[in-house]
Order: sequence, then structure tokens, then C-alpha cells
Amino acid sequence: PFLRATGNQHQSQPAGISVTQATERGTLYSIDEIRALSRFARKHGLRLHMDGARLANAAAALDAPLCDFTRAAGVDVLSFGGAKNGILFGEAVVFFDKDLARDFPWIRKQGLHLMSKMRFIGAQFEALLRDDLWLRNARHANAMAALLRAQLEKIPGVEICFPTDINMVWCRFPERAIPEIQKRFSFHIEDPAARMARLVTSFDTSKADVMNFASVVKQAVAGK
Amino acid sequence: PFLRATGNQHQSQPAGISVTQATERGTLYSIDEIRALSRFARKHGLRLHMDGARLANAAAALDAPLCDFTRAAGVDVLSFGGAKNGILFGEAVVFFDKDLARDFPWIRKQGLHLMSKMRFIGAQFEALLRDDLWLRNARHANAMAALLRAQLEKIPGVEICFPTDINMVWCRFPERAIPEIQKRFSFHIEDPAARMARLVTSFDTSKADVMNFASVVKQAVAGK
Amino acid sequence: PFLRATGNQHQSQPAGISVTQATERGTLYSIDEIRALSRFARKHGLRLHMDGARLANAAAALDAPLCDFTRAAGVDVLSFGGAKNGILFGEAVVFFDKDLARDFPWIRKQGLHLMSKMRFIGAQFEALLRDDLWLRNARHANAMAALLRAQLEKIPGVEICFPTDINMVWCRFPERAIPEIQKRFSFHIEDPAARMARLVTSFDTSKADVMNFASVVKQAVAGK
Amino acid sequence: PFLRATGNQHQSQPAGISVTQATERGTLYSIDEIRALSRFARKHGLRLHMDGARLANAAAALDAPLCDFTRAAGVDVLSFGGAKNGILFGEAVVFFDKDLARDFPWIRKQGLHLMSKMRFIGAQFEALLRDDLWLRNARHANAMAALLRAQLEKIPGVEICFPTDINMVWCRFPERAIPEIQKRFSFHIEDPAARMARLVTSFDTSKADVMNFASVVKQAVAGK
Repeated sequence: PFLRATGNQHQSQPAGISVTQATERGTLYSIDEIRALSRFARKHGLRLHMDGARLANAAAALDAPLCDFTRAAGVDVLSFGGAKNGILFGEAVVFFDKDLARDFPWIRKQGLHLMSKMRFIGAQFEALLRDDLWLRNARHANAMAALLRAQLEKIPGVEICFPTDINMVWCRFPERAIPEIQKRFSFHIEDPAARMARLVTSFDTSKADVMNFASVVKQAVAGK
Repeated sequence: PFLRATGNQHQSQPAGISVTQATERGTLYSIDEIRALSRFARKHGLRLHMDGARLANAAAALDAPLCDFTRAAGVDVLSFGGAKNGILFGEAVVFFDKDLARDFPWIRKQGLHLMSKMRFIGAQFEALLRDDLWLRNARHANAMAALLRAQLEKIPGVEICFPTDINMVWCRFPERAIPEIQKRFSFHIEDPAARMARLVTSFDTSKADVMNFASVVKQAVAGK
Repeated sequence: PFLRATGNQHQSQPAGISVTQATERGTLYSIDEIRALSRFARKHGLRLHMDGARLANAAAALDAPLCDFTRAAGVDVLSFGGAKNGILFGEAVVFFDKDLARDFPWIRKQGLHLMSKMRFIGAQFEALLRDDLWLRNARHANAMAALLRAQLEKIPGVEICFPTDINMVWCRFPERAIPEIQKRFSFHIEDPAARMARLVTSFDTSKADVMNFASVVKQAVAGK
Repeated sequence: PFLRATGNQHQSQPAGISVTQATERGTLYSIDEIRALSRFARKHGLRLHMDGARLANAAAALDAPLCDFTRAAGVDVLSFGGAKNGILFGEAVVFFDKDLARDFPWIRKQGLHLMSKMRFIGAQFEALLRDDLWLRNARHANAMAALLRAQLEKIPGVEICFPTDINMVWCRFPERAIPEIQKRFSFHIEDPAARMARLVTSFDTSKADVMNFASVVKQAVAGK
């Protein structure tokens, strides 16, 4: 429906499609889906942006080279996230079409992201990209989420909400169990209407952390 | 000095030169001056914009076809003013290079100037441009300013400040005369530090208006 | 649901409610409905703005003093439209709470609406407000819309879509009749999916105009 | 002169004074100067902001409690810099008047500075503020700048440009020496017209670094 606005001076003009890979729900776009989006974008004169705050987790889950589901699949601009995969701060914006990047230094400046001492941010990416650290971090986080899901599935009364493609488990706890669990672990009920909790594992989540959390949930749900 | 910022991501980038023809001081750029500005702009990758709120007065004063000191002199974008030359409201933005205008409908919308019933604004321009009304209005206003200047020059104690190329006279009145004159005529001391008054004639200023004003000034200055 | 965002730094904060009186569909909010909206707004710390591009038509249709369904009903800021009721250009923004207006001169300037020669806009409002011209214009336009509706209702195959509270009739013409009618009269199919035409009468629409239009529609629908 | 714009709807309104302590030239405002600025601000209804990117260096140089030249001197809002004093990224905005901070969470969000994992930024400030690390870092950097200045002053042909109040030395090298020095050390000629170099020491600059640099300068200037 947004395409109906094209050329109408009374309306904002569609310029691009932005997808989040992996999604906010912890699921993935397949390579074919991204290709289809890219074809649609190209056909309508739009650009394709991929928000990759959790791109490393997607790469680990798809078990495919980054290029296959980004540049080769028709993505024009990519945000390659770091802050959710082990570094303190920062994500890299990658333009596959350099012409699109021409004004980006000033867009970055106007967006208040031309920072003092940016070399300290860049240095973290150097470390992250060396010896596949980014991928190892993501694989570990994904594995811990799979373990977490498997543990939670065993607990009657806990309901898992979406596929667990990456390092994120969405679930519903029984209402009265929530404050009990929150006494020990901090998490948000992201969507109060649906009463869904979002549980995210990370590069430094250990098996013991997961087992410990599952055990606390089990007791809270059992009402002990 | 602004050109030193070119390519520096810490600084705003120069993109164009904007000149006001005629100027806020009531003076003119000659055709040669505009050509020189245009050459400079082109050499440095800049565009040349002409703010023509009083363009009609400039055309009348230069006694040259509009094209000679706009498009043919290298102006890229022109604002052709109407509100200061007899219509109620509006100025026309003219792009000599249509590529520059591609996004303008949306810039106009975002700038809150895509208005309801714009045909009522356009209709005024049709009338203004018919039978050289715009030029006749401007010639009359310019002539009245020349008359005003000539009258004021005769009054000892009144100091004229700039050339009177168009329909504007800048002058200094003796301090104590100002409130006397303002009892009869409304005008601003635009620049308090320099104590300069800006007097503007228009399409409907009559000779009698000018003579009447000059006579009031004469009495006020004489302290009667 | 927007109120759930209150206090959440990740989300835009609700600050006001804006209603259009009369609506874009040509219908009205009753005085009681506006009062209820105002109570809701006040309860949640919001302000109530009324977009009155067609306020005169609403006043004529409600047959109530302006104050009753604006200030007295709890409206904080009102746009009083002129351009759709007989003047060339302009609407007046009315703040019932002067504190809210404190920064408005600079908001107007930043919004590019501090214009040259604004007295020419103000002068039109003086004329519009004298001797109830605004109300007479609106009453006439409303009456012409009622007549138009009555005429169209008589034509089999023309479907009227909403109540005709003011000077606006929404209707559906048979698909093949549309180009025939458009040969003689210019109108838009505003909502292509619903194939609805928006017909608006104005202060200078005559009975003959309406009868003429209805007659053209009748012939086009009859396929003659 | 900006105060002349107050109340004029054609001009931006003055709302505050912003001073940088220490300045971009490496000099200081005295406590009395800040108090005087604060009195002036208060008198004219303005707020006083202090950009403290190098506030720690100022505190070390003034040898006074932070409070004395910020809150107690009448500063309303303070930026307390970290990135130039040993942490990777971040500065803390401190509102002494909490009313001024009411909308700041959303200003931060709109300014694109509500970041993911901000606790990693906060954690650095915890470390910086513990056991006066911020002050020890700054004292060391200041001392190294004083040493650098003393060494450079001994070299004929090197001209020091401003007082060295903090960790910054501005100087002029002979033109032909500059490329020689830059072969070994990276620095900018910040102001090409004045040919001034800006040399900044930091928390991890060692005496050996300074002596080494001075020795390279000495040789380059001597033309060896």
C-alpha cells in the first residue's frame, strides 16, 4: 500500500525496505526470502537495508557465509552489530554500493555519531573479526539458547512462543511465578498484553547459568 | 574560507551561493558580477541561487531582460517574488536545471508550503505576468523612490546612506525628528546602532504620498 | 494504547489529541463527544487540538455558537480555517490558554509561516468575520451539499457513502460513468480501493451548478 | 548583541551560554570568571552550560573541588567528559537543576544517544570515579604537558603559542621541520593559516614519550 504514494507530493515517498536479521522475535529470514525481498525492492526502485544487530547469530544459525545472505542476496546497506555480540559499543554500517555512502560521513556527523576517539570502537571490531571470534561468540550464545529452550520445555506450565533460531527464547510463565523468578533473575515482560518474557543468552552465558535459571523457574512454577 | 571545509566530515559542506537581487540595502549586482559569481560557483562545484524578492525592481533598474541576469548569467535556482510587487502572497521558485527540482515537491511539502487552494496563489501570478504588470509595478515603485530620494536630499540634516538603485531609500534623520515623523508615518529604524531608517515605496505609492512625506520630514527636521 | 508509552524513554510521548471538526468524511463531532474527548485528555495530561479547516461549516451545521464546541467544550488550541470558506489563503491559530502560545511566534517562524505582508492575510479575516460572512458562506455551502445529495439520491446506481453533515458528499458512481462525468467536471476518486468520489460545494456554488452536475451524472449513469 | 534579538520573532532566541572548561586552546576559566558569566546569564534569563570534555584536567589544574567551579559557581548543566581521560567512550551530562532534565531522556533518544548496553558505558565511569582515578589521570596528563612545554621552550625556533594550563601545548614549528617530525609522530596542524600544531598528552603518556618527542623535534629543527 505504501507504493501507492509514489509520486504523490502529499505523501512521504517510499525509498527502501529495512529487514532485521535475525528478527526481534529471534527468528530468521531464509536466504530465499531475502532474495525475494531484494527482487521486489529493485523492481520498485527501492533499496534494501538489513539491520544486523544480531547478524552474527543469524550467520551462525544459517551456517552460511555472511555474503550469501547479505551482498549476494541483494542487500544494499548492512548494519553489522557488535554490542550484542561481545564488544562494549558500536556497530559497523557497510555499504555494498559505495555511491550510497558518499554523504554518509555527514549523515553520521548530523546523527551525532562522529565520536571522539572512534579508534577505540574500531579496535574492538578488529578483535571481534579476528579468528572468527564474532562467529564463535554467536554460536555459543545460540547453543545456550537452545539449551535454555530444551530445559524450559520440560517444565509444565511454561509455554514457548516462537521458534528459537538464535540466542533468544520467548516464553510465557504462569503469572504468579514471575515475581518469584524475578527475585533471582532480572528480565522484562516485553509485551504485557501477551505476557511474554524475552530471554536472551550471550557470549558469556554458561551452561551452569542456564541450568541454574531453569531450576529457579521449575521451583517458582511448582510454587515452592 | 568556507571552501576549506570541503571534504571535512567535521564541518557543514558548502553546496551553494545565494545572492539577493536587488539587495537588502536597495542596491544591485551588475550582470558581470553575477556572471563572476556563477563562474566561481561552477569552479568549486557549488550552485548559484538568486533570492529575487525584489527581482522585478532589479529588472526595471537594470533595464535588461530577466534572462540576462538570471539563467543566462548562470543562476541555477531563482525565487521570483510577488508579495513585494503587488500580489497578496507568494513567490515562484524557478529551477533552470530541472534535475535540481526532482525532489522539490516533497521539500515544499516538508517546508509546510504545499498549501490548500494554491490555484489562488497561481492566479495572482498569471495577472502579474500579463501585459508586463510586474515590470510596470516595479518601474513605478523605483521612480517613486528616486523622487523620494531627490526630495530628502534637499532637506539639510537628512543623510542618505546608500545608492537608491531600486524602490528603497536608506537614510538618517536627526534623532529628535524621528518621533515627530513617526507620529504621521510608520517606519522602523532598522539598524539602531547606525540609526538608519529604511523607506520603501511600492506599486501604489503616489507622487502626492512622497511629497507629503517629504514635507512632514522637512517640518520635523526644522523643529516646527 | 499510545498511553502505554508514557514515561518510556524508548518511545515518543503522547502530548495531545487532535480532532478535525468537521471531519475529512464530512461528518461532525457532537458537543458531547468533544467534551468527552476533552475530559479524557485532561485526565491523561494531554492537550486537545481542533483542526478547524471546515470549522465554519461545522458551526453552521451544529447551529451552535463557536464557543460551545471549542473553548467551552475544553479545546485548548484551535485552527480556524479560512481558505476553504472564501478567502484566498490562511488559517488562524487560536490559543485559549495563552501560556501555550508563548513560543508560538518562533514555532511559526521555524515552520516557515512568518510571511511577508501578513497584513494582507489578516485583512481577509477581518472581512470574513464582519457581519457573519464566514457563517453565511458556510451555511450556503452546506445547503448546496444537501441539495446535491438529494439530487444524487434520486439517481439509481449512485450510492451515497456517509452522512452529509456539512459541504461534502461522498459517493460511488458506476465505474464506466466516471470518465463520462469527468469530461465535464473535475473531481478525484479519493480512495481508489473503495472507488469513492469526494464532492465539495463552496461559498460560490450555485443551485444551477448543482442541478447541472446532477443532470450530467444522470446521463452518464444512464449510459447516454 | 545576541540579546538584541530577545523577543524578536524574526530571530533565534538566546537561551543559554555554553563555555568549554578547559578551553579548546588548553586554557582555563577562573572560578571568578565562571561566576561572572553565571551572574550575567541569570540577569538575562539564560542558562549556563559547561562543556567539560576536559573537565578533569581543569579540576587538576585549578586544584579546586569540582563543585566550586561548576554547581557552586552557577553552572546549570555540565558535560563531564570521559573519553579524553582514559575511558573508551562516553560523557555524563549532569543537571544541577533536575527540572531542566525532565525531557532529557527523550532528547537523548532523539539525539540517537540512547544506546544498547549503556551499562558498559556506565561501568567505565564507576571505575573512573573510584579512588580519584579521573583526577590522577588528569594530573598526570597535565604534568606531561608541562614537561613537554619545558622541553620545547629550550629548542630555538619552536614558538609556544598559549599558556599551558592543562594537557595541551600549542606551538609553531619551523615549516621545513614539520614533515620531518611527522615521519615519527602523528599530529595535525590545526590552524593552517596560523601554522599552529596542537600537542595533547594523556593519562598514558610517559616521560620517555615526551623526551623522545622533544629530541626528534630538536633534530628536525636543527635540520639534521
